[in-house]
Amino acid sequence: MPVTPDQQAEIDAERANPRQTLRATSPGMEQHLYTAIPVLDHGFVRVVDYMGDDAAICQAARVSYGKGTKSVQNDEGLIRYLMRHWHSTPFEMCEIKLHVKLPVFVARQWIRHRTANVNEYSARYSILDREFYIPAPEHLAAQSVVNNQGRGDTLSGEDAAKVLEILKADSSRAYDHYAELISEEEGSVGLARELARMNLPANIYTQWYWKVDLHNLLHFLRLRADAHAQYEIRVYADAICNVVADWVPFAFKAFEDYRMGAVSMSVQMMDSLRRMLKGEEVTQENSGMSAREWREFMGVIEG
Amino acid sequence: MPVTPDQQAEIDAERANPRQTLRATSPGMEQHLYTAIPVLDHGFVRVVDYMGDDAAICQAARVSYGKGTKSVQNDEGLIRYLMRHWHSTPFEMCEIKLHVKLPVFVARQWIRHRTANVNEYSARYSILDREFYIPAPEHLAAQSVVNNQGRGDTLSGEDAAKVLEILKADSSRAYDHYAELISEEEGSVGLARELARMNLPANIYTQWYWKVDLHNLLHFLRLRADAHAQYEIRVYADAICNVVADWVPFAFKAFEDYRMGAVSMSVQMMDSLRRMLKGEEVTQENSGMSAREWREFMGVIEG
Amino acid sequence: MPVTPDQQAEIDAERANPRQTLRATSPGMEQHLYTAIPVLDHGFVRVVDYMGDDAAICQAARVSYGKGTKSVQNDEGLIRYLMRHWHSTPFEMCEIKLHVKLPVFVARQWIRHRTANVNEYSARYSILDREFYIPAPEHLAAQSVVNNQGRGDTLSGEDAAKVLEILKADSSRAYDHYAELISEEEGSVGLARELARMNLPANIYTQWYWKVDLHNLLHFLRLRADAHAQYEIRVYADAICNVVADWVPFAFKAFEDYRMGAVSMSVQMMDSLRRMLKGEEVTQENSGMSAREWREFMGVIEG
Amino acid sequence: MPVTPDQQAEIDAERANPRQTLRATSPGMEQHLYTAIPVLDHGFVRVVDYMGDDAAICQAARVSYGKGTKSVQNDEGLIRYLMRHWHSTPFEMCEIKLHVKLPVFVARQWIRHRTANVNEYSARYSILDREFYIPAPEHLAAQSVVNNQGRGDTLSGEDAAKVLEILKADSSRAYDHYAELISEEEGSVGLARELARMNLPANIYTQWYWKVDLHNLLHFLRLRADAHAQYEIRVYADAICNVVADWVPFAFKAFEDYRMGAVSMSVQMMDSLRRMLKGEEVTQENSGMSAREWREFMGVIEG
Repeated sequence: MPVTPDQQAEIDAERANPRQTLRATSPGMEQHLYTAIPVLDHGFVRVVDYMGDDAAICQAARVSYGKGTKSVQNDEGLIRYLMRHWHSTPFEMCEIKLHVKLPVFVARQWIRHRTANVNEYSARYSILDREFYIPAPEHLAAQSVVNNQGRGDTLSGEDAAKVLEILKADSSRAYDHYAELISEEEGSVGLARELARMNLPANIYTQWYWKVDLHNLLHFLRLRADAHAQYEIRVYADAICNVVADWVPFAFKAFEDYRMGAVSMSVQMMDSLRRMLKGEEVTQENSGMSAREWREFMGVIEG
Repeated sequence: MPVTPDQQAEIDAERANPRQTLRATSPGMEQHLYTAIPVLDHGFVRVVDYMGDDAAICQAARVSYGKGTKSVQNDEGLIRYLMRHWHSTPFEMCEIKLHVKLPVFVARQWIRHRTANVNEYSARYSILDREFYIPAPEHLAAQSVVNNQGRGDTLSGEDAAKVLEILKADSSRAYDHYAELISEEEGSVGLARELARMNLPANIYTQWYWKVDLHNLLHFLRLRADAHAQYEIRVYADAICNVVADWVPFAFKAFEDYRMGAVSMSVQMMDSLRRMLKGEEVTQENSGMSAREWREFMGVIEG
Repeated sequence: MPVTPDQQAEIDAERANPRQTLRATSPGMEQHLYTAIPVLDHGFVRVVDYMGDDAAICQAARVSYGKGTKSVQNDEGLIRYLMRHWHSTPFEMCEIKLHVKLPVFVARQWIRHRTANVNEYSARYSILDREFYIPAPEHLAAQSVVNNQGRGDTLSGEDAAKVLEILKADSSRAYDHYAELISEEEGSVGLARELARMNLPANIYTQWYWKVDLHNLLHFLRLRADAHAQYEIRVYADAICNVVADWVPFAFKAFEDYRMGAVSMSVQMMDSLRRMLKGEEVTQENSGMSAREWREFMGVIEG
Repeated sequence: MPVTPDQQAEIDAERANPRQTLRATSPGMEQHLYTAIPVLDHGFVRVVDYMGDDAAICQAARVSYGKGTKSVQNDEGLIRYLMRHWHSTPFEMCEIKLHVKLPVFVARQWIRHRTANVNEYSARYSILDREFYIPAPEHLAAQSVVNNQGRGDTLSGEDAAKVLEILKADSSRAYDHYAELISEEEGSVGLARELARMNLPANIYTQWYWKVDLHNLLHFLRLRADAHAQYEIRVYADAICNVVADWVPFAFKAFEDYRMGAVSMSVQMMDSLRRMLKGEEVTQENSGMSAREWREFMGVIEG
């Protein structure tokens, strides 16, 4: 269960109390505010705050005094133009603040995106909860034989059971020992928290506040909602995609068309393509591409 | 006049239309939203949007689910603790978006603060207005003789008049030529805007949207609201200080006490200080400080 | 003349004194060190220092202890793979420090690339030289009628002469007045430098030290060596491209193939492409693209 | 043992091969290059590359063409002035690249310093070694009773033994299971590495290449070589301090005097100080400080 009744009560209290503001608001985002979108077995994503909407992107691009007299159609056209031509600064004018609960090994990938603000729950100061990510059996897969950093076939039921047993037992034992080490009861060791945490495995959950502008968020999503991203971070990216689609629908659609679903064609690929469109027979040998590039090329033109 | 009637109408339209939001709001900031705070002769600062308030700083520091049950007193104490001990990340959880109109030579100093988002009015795309910063006579000063990068005595009335005459005439002529070069009238040269702008002097006004988090804003204010900053950027920093004091009063007070008005004492200064407190006679010669450092030290302990 | 005899003597002195180092060296870069590559009429680019080479990119990607036993062919293949799949961190492991002399209006575009370190010549502290960018007549062009932020046809000789006369006269007068304002001679106003500089136009030259990692440099080059960049910054980017090609030849070739010369195909473009390759007749109307996108699409597939 | 014979051979090979360069070199750093400075039980810090020296800081501050004619004394004075007055950009003109081996829980603190470039050993792609940080008994301490995020008294021998037994047994079991899960032997599960790593505790060692400019490195060192930093990251910071002292001795001395050993005095502290120097009796009650601040104040003025 990602959120306790107490926490839910805090969330409900926040949602019960609308205020007046003169700022730009996004009705789609107001629906999401504070609610916890479940991800994985104990994780979640919560929108804590946001700044701006689709119109704010245009307002910044035009350095205008008000919303201007431009129509909604103009706004969508401008946003698509900005996205297509890599004018990234207007997208930086929107900002989002998320509260995320996630396994430590996911957090370690996530934090590599440096252009963001982060406040993580401190295991020097506080005690971590007994919550570990234990994958669903259908997400346990063998090491890929074609991609050195990915997964291949799903494990058989028997193998999956074996894996889960190990993960559960080791997590449980590690946490028991952690709790024992930091216990403040009479006769306990009372080890400093900053030391005791080193016994905890990477599937323990942590949480943080993460604040990022829309441009950098979209960059994060392009890499982490991608099919090659590890499943456990991809599900967070997918959840955030849904939020962004409600927040800034024009920008998100442009992102899908010009980034997420777009294909970058190298000089050699463009050359092959032009020759193919003229009816020429192009093969890997006469394409100037390596075998691997040719395979990637075939993959994208066949769709 | 910093804002035209049309622009004022746009501002009024924005202010006339409050919406409901579930987000944190800062009543002090709502008062400022969209209004243009005049700075210099044609410049201004306008708050276009903001995210967070004092409570949001605490919420992030605690990685909490709601506002929590903490009292307002606790919030102030926590904020002061965070500021005093350089825990900067919770302050990054607030964000502000400003629309600023400023002379180009001020913009060139300002942009050196890299951790911010900027959308500047494009002189490749658009035509700049005929607006130049002409200092008030009392702000015209001679080159400092003690500080190589500052101002000394105010100019005499006669000298000031001479300077103003030059600045006005050159600005005016430069703009006339700019307008002539880009004119699209029959028989005109029709020079590309991206080229014609090179004829304009550094006191012409530009404008931009500038978005920054509170931590980086305070760093900017510490440097630019300082007595050693150039007057023309300091007045912008001063105007923003007033805004921040209304937005996040606890954080701003802590900033005044622990940053803006604080003094950094070197190893040698602390050593001298401890000796003085013990009643010892300390001189520059036996202090381990250079003459210049000693002067700075005397300056701060005499207040 | 971009470099004075004194400055050239300083450069020669630096080049006369090789030292021993255990660090990675790039023979191609050693040739460039300190020499001033002329750009525009008074500008230049000088390599002041560099860190790393092609092998250093691979070394970081492999987190290896030494150069490893990998062959040069493997290094090139790895670099191309990293570039193709947007693994940017290994490219950040190379760094370059440039000394650049450039017109202020070019500096204003350049500085928008925030992920770099900059030390600019201070016009608060020092006196600027009497050097202005005056375009060659063949680079004077009219405002583009198809692109709102570009140039169109080159000006006629007569129009060019008119423009140059204005630029020269205004620059000259502005500098005369600047010199008069800051003059320290008896009877002069002696205006503070930080104020006097506001009279100088945007075609005056400034200079700075600019330090950036290879990943961010390539991003800069992709935008600024592009055909849509303003000519006056593009020539700097072109000069730097030549330097980078000598410094890290594998990385630069990969950059040309996968970034500089690559084309980003949107979802709609890929869909049209796949249909065309199957022999289908695709038109703007049935492509899902706007007229403008279709024109861009036709442009790239026709090459 | 932090470095294997094979790795040492690679390091020796690198050190055996000096090259000629025209770049600035730092003799003190050449001594350190590539050698592994041991930290904790299996960790190390290795300098892989560096850019610049003390003179390079001055060269950038002066935006000069060569080393200039300035004396070494002038250089030291300038560096001290720049440090004292927070002119940070010239310090950004030096860069260092380190190869660091460190426990994951240390890496998680370290990575929070965002203004740096990082390439970490990938546990999606590669297999982690069986190396865990097991503290020396004298570094095992109880949770502090005065500081919520620190350590208090050292554990008794008996308690330390109990802790070490747990840490060793749990690490060992976790690694055995990790190895079993990813084993590619016939009959094994062959779990994907990106999944199996979640079973490993935070005291396992990872390694990365970390590249940072001198200004940001000094900021890191100020926080992490501080007495309040966790011991396990402080020892890395201490090791790096020694390296920096050899690399840029003037800058490091200035850093010690004006940052590391400096004290920031708040408005209230300065006020009390001035009153004390005049012979006034100042107490917490009449100082305007909280009890905690007063304690901190007493701590620094008593030295």
